[in-house]
Amino acid sequence: MADKKLVEAITSMDEDFAKWYTDVVKKAELIDYSNVKGCMVIKPAGYAIWELMQRALDDMFKATGVENVYLPMFIPESLLQKEKDHVEGFAPEVAWVTHGGLTPLAERMCIRPTSETLFCDFYAGDIHSYRDLPRLYNQWCSVVRWEKETRPFLRSREFLWQEGHTAHATAEEAAGRTELMLNVYADFAEQFLAIPVIKGRKTEKEKFAGANATYSIEAMMHDGKALQAGTSHDFGDGFARAFGIQYTDKDNTLKYVHQTSWGLSTRMIGAIIMVHGDDSGLVLPPKVAPVQVMIIPIRQQAEGVLDKALELKETLKNFRVKIDSSDKSPGWKFSEQEMRGIPLRVEIGPKDIEAGKCIICRRDTREKIECNLDEIEQKIATLLDNIQKDMFDKAAAHLHGNTYAARSKAEFINLFNEKTGFVKAMWCGERACEETIKEEMSVTSRNIPNEQEHLADTCVYCNLPAKSMVCWGKSY
Amino acid sequence: MADKKLVEAITSMDEDFAKWYTDVVKKAELIDYSNVKGCMVIKPAGYAIWELMQRALDDMFKATGVENVYLPMFIPESLLQKEKDHVEGFAPEVAWVTHGGLTPLAERMCIRPTSETLFCDFYAGDIHSYRDLPRLYNQWCSVVRWEKETRPFLRSREFLWQEGHTAHATAEEAAGRTELMLNVYADFAEQFLAIPVIKGRKTEKEKFAGANATYSIEAMMHDGKALQAGTSHDFGDGFARAFGIQYTDKDNTLKYVHQTSWGLSTRMIGAIIMVHGDDSGLVLPPKVAPVQVMIIPIRQQAEGVLDKALELKETLKNFRVKIDSSDKSPGWKFSEQEMRGIPLRVEIGPKDIEAGKCIICRRDTREKIECNLDEIEQKIATLLDNIQKDMFDKAAAHLHGNTYAARSKAEFINLFNEKTGFVKAMWCGERACEETIKEEMSVTSRNIPNEQEHLADTCVYCNLPAKSMVCWGKSY
Repeated sequence: MADKKLVEAITSMDEDFAKWYTDVVKKAELIDYSNVKGCMVIKPAGYAIWELMQRALDDMFKATGVENVYLPMFIPESLLQKEKDHVEGFAPEVAWVTHGGLTPLAERMCIRPTSETLFCDFYAGDIHSYRDLPRLYNQWCSVVRWEKETRPFLRSREFLWQEGHTAHATAEEAAGRTELMLNVYADFAEQFLAIPVIKGRKTEKEKFAGANATYSIEAMMHDGKALQAGTSHDFGDGFARAFGIQYTDKDNTLKYVHQTSWGLSTRMIGAIIMVHGDDSGLVLPPKVAPVQVMIIPIRQQAEGVLDKALELKETLKNFRVKIDSSDKSPGWKFSEQEMRGIPLRVEIGPKDIEAGKCIICRRDTREKIECNLDEIEQKIATLLDNIQKDMFDKAAAHLHGNTYAARSKAEFINLFNEKTGFVKAMWCGERACEETIKEEMSVTSRNIPNEQEHLADTCVYCNLPAKSMVCWGKSY
Repeated sequence: MADKKLVEAITSMDEDFAKWYTDVVKKAELIDYSNVKGCMVIKPAGYAIWELMQRALDDMFKATGVENVYLPMFIPESLLQKEKDHVEGFAPEVAWVTHGGLTPLAERMCIRPTSETLFCDFYAGDIHSYRDLPRLYNQWCSVVRWEKETRPFLRSREFLWQEGHTAHATAEEAAGRTELMLNVYADFAEQFLAIPVIKGRKTEKEKFAGANATYSIEAMMHDGKALQAGTSHDFGDGFARAFGIQYTDKDNTLKYVHQTSWGLSTRMIGAIIMVHGDDSGLVLPPKVAPVQVMIIPIRQQAEGVLDKALELKETLKNFRVKIDSSDKSPGWKFSEQEMRGIPLRVEIGPKDIEAGKCIICRRDTREKIECNLDEIEQKIATLLDNIQKDMFDKAAAHLHGNTYAARSKAEFINLFNEKTGFVKAMWCGERACEETIKEEMSVTSRNIPNEQEHLADTCVYCNLPAKSMVCWGKSY
């Protein structure tokens, strides 16, 4: 059987990017489709990436004072309906539980699509005094949104994420937390996942249902399309008023709290694939690679080869290392290591051992490096650092090389007709204009970048006075 | 408001153990009740215990080769029905999803009460060859069982757990894994949670729906009742036959796999509370205490006191340490630290600083120890080790002191009438006899302990020839 399970060629990226993507997630064994429509099985190679992401992000959250909690997965219908915009945004795409065992429920409940209503209901009973603030809570869980079209990691009916929910005494403090968490997401994406992002504010049309303001990090995939990779919402006191979350301030008056929420999901694994992958499969940034080094013995039956491989693994014990000593051919093992995106491969055979050397091969550049065996630990450390940095630089060059500025409607239209990527352009701030652009051009506003440029005085599309520069693109 | 939130007296254990329990979970701020009936909010102090338990257990799993995965939370009704015993066991207590958004589902789905059927469905497509075996997968998730009566941690409609699901080439290998995981649970309970357990096999009546054999670890609570604290199931090839999970063996013939599953849940937090707690609240074993040392400054306004507290915290950075510098009185802070079960309290005031000393107070024994400030790091390390060990010894003494042997029916009845605890007695192995005992005595078989004793030749209740010694008790 194993002989039939060839490392088959995957579709090339340039030929069909969507097919390349699904080929990679399957062949790198990240997921399997399940018989539960729209839901996926996250296999060990995929889940291990998520575990490393969780660990890093959780540490970053905790360093800012966040504590983890767990709230129920069910939302009674009446609770979901308490905040008007929110229920309108989510009710059409929730899964409804109507029976417990053999008994119909008195009130049906949905499975959380997100937990603002549950946190608000909890906070209403939990927060009394200014001494109880701020509340900086987060939970790691799965949520359900009844999507019609699904794609592994990018859009599925159930997905894993974290959702932070905070409550503060003042509007300023809530705004500060919203910005802080956006920065945490951006740092995480750039430093751990080697994915450069554009930080900015969503337009009114694109903001979260019930938020005063939504901020996002937007990443550019290899095909020039955008992926919204993390969002941070400032709710002001809107939810607090709907749910009656009040505290007694130092001046002995009752005041409403101000809230935020922020989330990042397994969708980010999709971003890693689409930013860094190539025609040989996955390319993982070393910091989130479950296996950083694969040692592949050459002529492993020869005396001393497997022993030397084990010795190297021990020498490299500060890294995540595996040995592939299966009975497949070395060439086959190379292809598998490449498909799985393992950052470094160490090849070691009888001749290498005799010469006191080995060959190290970088997954990202395919560069082959000869290395003295007694220098391997330092060499691997340096190479992993370099790969992490070079992958970010390459992705940043791709982002900047495919982001354009349009100063006129003609230029705006031409750019989207001729290029794939982001287009920065001035905008009037009117929802109607944004909707026209979406309809006529099939592009959406990604965000209003924090780093603003003054490209022109008027809106690129309608010529009304410009309010801000928007980043536009096609998106996942 | 804060002044009203007194450290109120909790019900005493001996007066009303059930009320003591719910007082402690609330006052130690482990959970809050939610407006979702039968579901709880796990607050930071409770969730942090779970995180430490997860980390320790996950490391133990991975050391035996287990990998983590994530499967969907939904089970289509037809999938749940594939294994006859299993569906009969679980169908009456599942929550049913009938609508996705505004549309009725073609087939209703339940939320997983456990995931055997999902793993089997997955394995049927994933396993082809002997090279694919064993599969050693685990997932951390929440499950739903529509319980009528619920109690925090012990029984709730949704709870957090891990469920391991493995597939093996042979019956022997599956049996070995079942035993291995039972031992992992026992080691975890004893070494991390300081809870001694009785390992054994469940009777046919009490085994898991669909299993060939179920093994459990049983712990004794302070009130003498049993808590089933972790289970490991050997399925043989029953599920494999129902789901068609076959592999091609080395001899080129198709064979069914042999499977196991094993789970441990947040129920274990209930065990920690009920084994170790006292009339002042929670008592946490150091290894799973989110805060191991609480530094409480005395006369903290006095010059140098807070600085010294911060200095101590820095000295103790290898432990989980907090300073309580709130504006509450020291006495109040002591009660809070005790209620939350923090293993050690360090009291430091101006006089102590002058003398180069501090007072360390053990939560478990209330012993007060004077400690030179320059010896504090070593002292804390030793004390935490001692507490962990002493708590286990105390719990073990309680377990052994309240476990009796009955050699006759009269003795069996008397023991349960006069004592609280476990009673070991010989049993015929007949289900009817077990049911009679349950009906007449209101006790259940906990398990057939691995460590068997020959107490008599005949069944304690019916006088038929005895097959094995059973441990009986009242249970949660």
